[in-house]
Amino acid sequence: MSTGKKARKDLAQKPRGFQDKTADLFAAEQAVIAKVTHVYQQWGFDGLDTGAFEFADSLGKFLPDADRPNEGVFGFQDDETWLALRYDLTAPLARFAAENWQTLPTPYRRYAYGPVWRNEKPGPGRYREFLQCDADTVGAGGIQADAEMLAMAVEAVQAAGAEPGDFQIGVNTRRLLNGVLEGAGIYVDAARLTVLRALDKYDKFGASGVAALLGEGRMDESGDFTKGAGLEVRQIEAVMAYLETRHGSRYETVEALGRLAGSTEEGQAGLAELEGLEKAFSALNIGGSDIVFNTLIVRGLDYYTGPVFEAEYLKPLQDEKGRPVQIGSIGGGGRYDDLIARFTGQKVPATGFSLGVSRLVTAFRLSGALTAPQAPIVVLNMIRDNPYIAMGIAQEIRAAGLRAEAYMGSSGMRAQMKYADRRHAPAVVMAGEDELAKGTLTIKNLALGAQKSTHIETHEEWRESRPGQMEVPRDKLVVTLKNILRGG
Amino acid sequence: MSTGKKARKDLAQKPRGFQDKTADLFAAEQAVIAKVTHVYQQWGFDGLDTGAFEFADSLGKFLPDADRPNEGVFGFQDDETWLALRYDLTAPLARFAAENWQTLPTPYRRYAYGPVWRNEKPGPGRYREFLQCDADTVGAGGIQADAEMLAMAVEAVQAAGAEPGDFQIGVNTRRLLNGVLEGAGIYVDAARLTVLRALDKYDKFGASGVAALLGEGRMDESGDFTKGAGLEVRQIEAVMAYLETRHGSRYETVEALGRLAGSTEEGQAGLAELEGLEKAFSALNIGGSDIVFNTLIVRGLDYYTGPVFEAEYLKPLQDEKGRPVQIGSIGGGGRYDDLIARFTGQKVPATGFSLGVSRLVTAFRLSGALTAPQAPIVVLNMIRDNPYIAMGIAQEIRAAGLRAEAYMGSSGMRAQMKYADRRHAPAVVMAGEDELAKGTLTIKNLALGAQKSTHIETHEEWRESRPGQMEVPRDKLVVTLKNILRGG
Repeated sequence: MSTGKKARKDLAQKPRGFQDKTADLFAAEQAVIAKVTHVYQQWGFDGLDTGAFEFADSLGKFLPDADRPNEGVFGFQDDETWLALRYDLTAPLARFAAENWQTLPTPYRRYAYGPVWRNEKPGPGRYREFLQCDADTVGAGGIQADAEMLAMAVEAVQAAGAEPGDFQIGVNTRRLLNGVLEGAGIYVDAARLTVLRALDKYDKFGASGVAALLGEGRMDESGDFTKGAGLEVRQIEAVMAYLETRHGSRYETVEALGRLAGSTEEGQAGLAELEGLEKAFSALNIGGSDIVFNTLIVRGLDYYTGPVFEAEYLKPLQDEKGRPVQIGSIGGGGRYDDLIARFTGQKVPATGFSLGVSRLVTAFRLSGALTAPQAPIVVLNMIRDNPYIAMGIAQEIRAAGLRAEAYMGSSGMRAQMKYADRRHAPAVVMAGEDELAKGTLTIKNLALGAQKSTHIETHEEWRESRPGQMEVPRDKLVVTLKNILRGG
Repeated sequence: MSTGKKARKDLAQKPRGFQDKTADLFAAEQAVIAKVTHVYQQWGFDGLDTGAFEFADSLGKFLPDADRPNEGVFGFQDDETWLALRYDLTAPLARFAAENWQTLPTPYRRYAYGPVWRNEKPGPGRYREFLQCDADTVGAGGIQADAEMLAMAVEAVQAAGAEPGDFQIGVNTRRLLNGVLEGAGIYVDAARLTVLRALDKYDKFGASGVAALLGEGRMDESGDFTKGAGLEVRQIEAVMAYLETRHGSRYETVEALGRLAGSTEEGQAGLAELEGLEKAFSALNIGGSDIVFNTLIVRGLDYYTGPVFEAEYLKPLQDEKGRPVQIGSIGGGGRYDDLIARFTGQKVPATGFSLGVSRLVTAFRLSGALTAPQAPIVVLNMIRDNPYIAMGIAQEIRAAGLRAEAYMGSSGMRAQMKYADRRHAPAVVMAGEDELAKGTLTIKNLALGAQKSTHIETHEEWRESRPGQMEVPRDKLVVTLKNILRGG
C-alpha cells in the first residue's frame, strides 16, 4: 500500500458540504431517530427502507434549485438510464406505493428514516447530506389521516425530548385561503400568487410590510421598490384580518375564519377541514398550545393539495458565544393527493410528516438537553507482559452491564491516565502485581480525584497520592464501580 | 402535478441491483444493528457517521472490479474534483483518522454502520447497496487489539441472535504462512503468489486439487489444464501439512504450526501472534468452537498486514423450496497497518471487523429465528360521522404501551375486517352506537376467530357470529387486549 507511493495529506479531507458526526452528535441523532420511530411504530406505521437510489425520472424535479447541476439532485448515468440519489423520503415512497399498490394494505402507513442528498452549493452550515425521519399515510383521503399525522408528530417530538411549550405545530389549509380571497372578490390567479408571496414575507417584513405588498407596494431601506398586488383597501383588510385570526385559540381561529370565509364553497371546505382536525384533537387530547391553526403557514403550496403543517421550535436559545439562535422549522408536511397519480394516473390520497433530525438535535444541544453516552470505565494495563489480565477485568465489568475497556498497549502510567481523562472515564481500575498477590483491585473515582492525574508518573506515586482512590477486594469490583457511577 | 402530464407507469420501478426493504426485513436488520452496536458501545467503541461521500481519491481504488465504471465505485464530478460514494466503512475511517489524528484519543475505537455502494453489474441476489456494521481500533499495534476485535465479534454475532455453534470465526496470520513457505525453501514472490491462489481454491477443489495446483498443475473436467506452482514433493507436503493443522483445537494448531514454521523469523512472529491471541481468548473465556485458527483463511492478503479473520455461518439451512443454502461468510476483517499512512506518511496501526448485516439476517430468516414486529391492534371505525371515537380508543391503547391504530376512512365492515386481516392484527376493537350507549366495547380475538372474518358483511352479522369475540366494560379494554396478546 504505502510502498513507493507518496503520502497525500491533502486527501485527508471531508468534501465541502458534508459532515463527520462523532460520538456525541452521532448518539444524539440515533437516540432521536429511535424514539421518534418507536412512536411511529406504536401508531401502526411500518418501517420501509427504499435505499438511496431511484431512477432520476421517478424522483421527478420538485426541488427549487433549477440552476444547480441536475436541478439539485446527485445523478449518475447507468448504462442507458440515469440514476439519482433521493433528495427526500416522499418521492421514493410515491414510487414504491405506485409499484406495489396491489399488495399493500389500504391505507398504507409507513415510516422511514435516513440520509437524503441535495446537490446544493455548499456554504457555512449548509449541508448536502442530512437526516430525515418521516411518516406517511397513503390511501386515506379523510381529514382523520391528517389529524393522526399531526397528533403523532406532537407525540414524536416530545418523545424525542422536547418539552410541551418548546415547540408548536402550525396548521393551515389552502382551501380556506382560497375562500377568503374569493370572499374578498379576488379571483385572478396572478393576484392570488402575489398575495401568497406577500404572506410568505410576513416573518421578514411584519404586518405593515405585508399590507404594503398587498397594496401599492413596498420600499425597502435601500430605496428599492417592490410592486404590490394592488388590492383595494377593503380587500387588504380582509387578508390582514385572515392573518390575524392566528392569534386566538384553535376554536377562536375557526370561529373568526368562519366569519371571513364562510360565504364561499372553498372556504366552507377549508373550514370543514379545520373543524374535523379540531374534533380529532379533542378526541386525542392535543393541547391548544401544541397545535395551532396558523394562517401564515404557506409552505410548498405547489406541492401540497390540502392541509399543510409546520413544526417550529419556540424556546429561546443562545449559541456558545451567547448570541440568540433561531432554530425555526424542525419539520413539516401536509397532504399531497396528486404525487402518486404521476405514476398510476389514478388519484391516491396521501399525507405525511417529515422531521428534521439535525435541527432538533441542534436545538437540544443548545438548550443543554443532550446527555452524552456513558463514558467507559478504563482498566489500565499494569503488567507489561500480560495485558490480558486487564482485558479479563474489563470483560467482567461489561458482564455486569457497564461500559468498560481495557487500555490497549503498554504505555507508562502517565499516558494511560491521560487516555482515561480524554475518554472522560468515570473511573479507572488497576491490577498491578501487588493487587494480584493480595486478591484486590485499586479503583480511582476520577470525578473525586482532585489532584490532576497527569502529574502522576509511576504506579508508586499513584498509590501514595490516592485522591478518590480505594483498594477493594476483587469481588467488590462491580459494586464499587456501580456506586461511583451513581455519584457515590 | 398530474395536470396535463401523462402518467408514467414505467417509472414506478426500483432500479436493478437495489432493494426495497419492507416491514419485517427492515425491522430484522435494524434489530441486528441495534444489538451489535450496543455490544460495540459496551466495549468502549464510539459511534461515528462519516456520511456517504468522500473525495474519490481519498477512497482509493481497492475494489477488485477493475473492468467496471470507476472501478466499481459510484462517482460524480463536483466542480473540479470527483466525489464518490463509500464502498466500505474502512476507507472513510482511514480518511477521518488521518484528518483528525491530533485530536483523537490513542487508540481510537469507533463503530459505524450504514449502507455502502458498489457499482457492480447487477444480477440475481447481487445488490449494489448493502449494510455493513463495523468496529475498528486505530492506533493500537499489539495483538491485544486484534484479540479484542475477535472476542467482541463473537459477542456481537451472538447478541444479534446466533446461537453458539451456529457460526465460527476463523483466524490466520500472513506472517505464519510466510514462515512455512520460507521453512520449505520457497522464497520467490511469484511462487508464493501461486501458492496463495492455490490455497484460495481449497473450498472449490479440495485437498487433492490444491496439491495438484502446488505441483505440476490441475486438469479440470472439461480437459482445461491450469499450470501449477511446480513445487517439489517435500514442499507440497509442507504446505499441505500447514493446511491440515486447522483440524485441531487452537492449542493443537499452534503446537503443530510451531513444528512447521518455528525455524524462521517470520514464522516465529506469526506464532507469537497466535499465542497472544490464545492467551487473550483464555482471559476472555472464548470457547474453542467460537474462534479457531484456520490456515485456509487467506482473504484480501494485499490489503491486510497481520492477522486476518472471517466469520462463517455453519448451521445447515434450506430455502423455501427445501434446497440447501450455504450462507458462507457473515463478516470478516483483520489488521491493516498501512492504510492511514497513505494520507499521513506515518504508520498508524489499525484492525477492524465488519459484519455483513444482510447475510446474517438471511441466515436468521431461513432458520426461522426472525420474529416479526408485533402487529397492531386495529380499532374499527363504526360511526361514520364521528371517526374520532375510534382514534381516541386507539390512543388509549397506545398509552398502555400497546401498538394500535384506528381504521382510516369509513368503509363497510367487510373492508375494515379485510384490512385488519391484512395487518395480521391480533385483535380488533369496536365501539358502535350500542356499545357507546352501554359503556362497553366489543373486542374480537382474531387468532381465536375460527370463522373467516371476510364472510362478515354487517355489524349485526358480526355480533351474532362472535367467534373469539367478547363485549367488555370500557375500563377493561387494556387488560383484555393484554390478555389476548399473551395468547389468552
